[in-house]
Amino acid sequence: MDNHPAHTVGPDADAVTLADIEDAAERLQGVAVRTPLLRSPLLDRRAGRPILVKAEALQRTGSFKLRGAYNRIAHIAPEARQRGVVAYSSGNHAQGVAAAAGLLGLSATIVMPSDAPAIKRANTEALGASVVLYDRQTESREAIGARIRDETAATLVRPYDDPLIIAGQGTVGLELIEQCELAGVTPAAVLVPCGGGGLSAGIATAVAAKAPGTPVFCVEPEGYDDTRRSLESGHREQVVGHQPTACDALMSPQPGEITFAINRQQLRAGLVVREDQVLQAMAAAFLDLKIVVEPGGAVALAAALWGDAGLPPPPAPLVVVCSGGNVDPQAFATMLSAAPI
Amino acid sequence: MDNHPAHTVGPDADAVTLADIEDAAERLQGVAVRTPLLRSPLLDRRAGRPILVKAEALQRTGSFKLRGAYNRIAHIAPEARQRGVVAYSSGNHAQGVAAAAGLLGLSATIVMPSDAPAIKRANTEALGASVVLYDRQTESREAIGARIRDETAATLVRPYDDPLIIAGQGTVGLELIEQCELAGVTPAAVLVPCGGGGLSAGIATAVAAKAPGTPVFCVEPEGYDDTRRSLESGHREQVVGHQPTACDALMSPQPGEITFAINRQQLRAGLVVREDQVLQAMAAAFLDLKIVVEPGGAVALAAALWGDAGLPPPPAPLVVVCSGGNVDPQAFATMLSAAPI
Repeated sequence: MDNHPAHTVGPDADAVTLADIEDAAERLQGVAVRTPLLRSPLLDRRAGRPILVKAEALQRTGSFKLRGAYNRIAHIAPEARQRGVVAYSSGNHAQGVAAAAGLLGLSATIVMPSDAPAIKRANTEALGASVVLYDRQTESREAIGARIRDETAATLVRPYDDPLIIAGQGTVGLELIEQCELAGVTPAAVLVPCGGGGLSAGIATAVAAKAPGTPVFCVEPEGYDDTRRSLESGHREQVVGHQPTACDALMSPQPGEITFAINRQQLRAGLVVREDQVLQAMAAAFLDLKIVVEPGGAVALAAALWGDAGLPPPPAPLVVVCSGGNVDPQAFATMLSAAPI
Repeated sequence: MDNHPAHTVGPDADAVTLADIEDAAERLQGVAVRTPLLRSPLLDRRAGRPILVKAEALQRTGSFKLRGAYNRIAHIAPEARQRGVVAYSSGNHAQGVAAAAGLLGLSATIVMPSDAPAIKRANTEALGASVVLYDRQTESREAIGARIRDETAATLVRPYDDPLIIAGQGTVGLELIEQCELAGVTPAAVLVPCGGGGLSAGIATAVAAKAPGTPVFCVEPEGYDDTRRSLESGHREQVVGHQPTACDALMSPQPGEITFAINRQQLRAGLVVREDQVLQAMAAAFLDLKIVVEPGGAVALAAALWGDAGLPPPPAPLVVVCSGGNVDPQAFATMLSAAPI
């Protein structure tokens, strides 16, 4: 799969199979946390239905990104390992790559925007990676990444548009279906935060195989609903403008090629939530579940609580992925205070 | 065990056995969350050793208290069930009793201090209990509880000094030993927050049976180290004065009779932490683990990070129980901003 011809002949929805995801799950055994599927009577009451929360904020490095990064890096050929890896990321992928590279004994260089949350940069460095900053307005992270690759011959670890990354993120889907079975709950839908679409593509592939017929929705913040619009138009739409958002993890400019090929076939639809709903969902996660969720990680919970257009109506139970928790303490304190809940 | 003669002939350390705890574990199957044992490379680095955190803040109702309350209430005789239960509590036990009574179909009345955190009162009511407030300075909660019992003949659910409560809390110990084995870690010590001593008594009993020789320490905040002093003197010491503390869950005036009989035999020693260390531990849990821990729930983590007197030295791994997460959003935001981390 390392030499998947996605970028030459065009990807299809079979780029990632259940076997790829199960293979990733085996590789991640003992590396990734099997994050709990949390539930709270208070949250259920807020939603008017059971809400089961897959708490990927509790994942090693504070987001699901470790899963894909580890699966990808573990596949690097022996002779290429000593040249290390390079990645560009606003933060969560950076930490996932840094941690995965460290665990596997490879060096990592991360290209990060200079306005990324301080916690994401500090943690990336603490995990042993070298960080190269760039200005989001005036510089191209791709150009910087390419220069580093030219200089070092390091392997580029893409944030989402790579079958091995998607398969790694798909392990979230395997786990949540197993956990629903253990809990005796049949979910009426699964809701997943969406940036470039790797997490939703992986989860939707796993859910389609393990719980066929269960609709999977991706969720995006207002202004960054490129996947929703792409699902409607049938081709990859761009983000228009760069309106301010607290969801720094979900600002990717358009769906990936491979992720969109999968999401187009596997997702029921895309949902969109407002910024104030995101803050309320963060507060609900704090109050009812005692987990820290960053804005981008809270969009699916926001949709489950308040953005019900298109969802199966209550009391049908929903599974919601809370995908990350890397938020600066000061920002979190401010958001918590401002949340109208 | 319902008619344990503890208050007439004096309890001994055999009041709760491994069989009692295993029985409670069976009863709690599908009711209590099997909370994860979390770990973070960042937290390990902070401590200079592996720290495995049993995240009871993620328990149903936001603290471990559900376990004991459910186990106790499940044992109420059929003819007494319709008269309901009564409890007095500053908050976490209140929520545990409210939720357990609701799950088992009994009515619950909770006597709470009027200065308890708003979130604990609101959640207790949301879980279906009736709340009766009293003034901590001028009224006796025991007297109010006794009056309600006289009026209703409800069963009193004690917060800690009851073998069935202790056995329920002990299920935390069973789980953490199993989870350590799964993780391939042999803990050098287990650290447990301590108010009345029910959680430490239950956990220490389970650990003594399942991982004999592993020392268990209880941890208290400055000014409320009655169990530490009692362990040293050999009899139950009182809290002297009522200095301000953020640890509202750990303000019980002295060790319980039954809990102390067990703790005296099973605990290695008591540790004490400062208030500023507690706030730092809450911030570390936020940053490294993405969990919300209330002050009283964070004392054991504080001891693991900074209060190392008496503990096995690094790099020996420690297991730490974070026992609850019920903290008002505004208070949490203020504490997070103030934590020097």
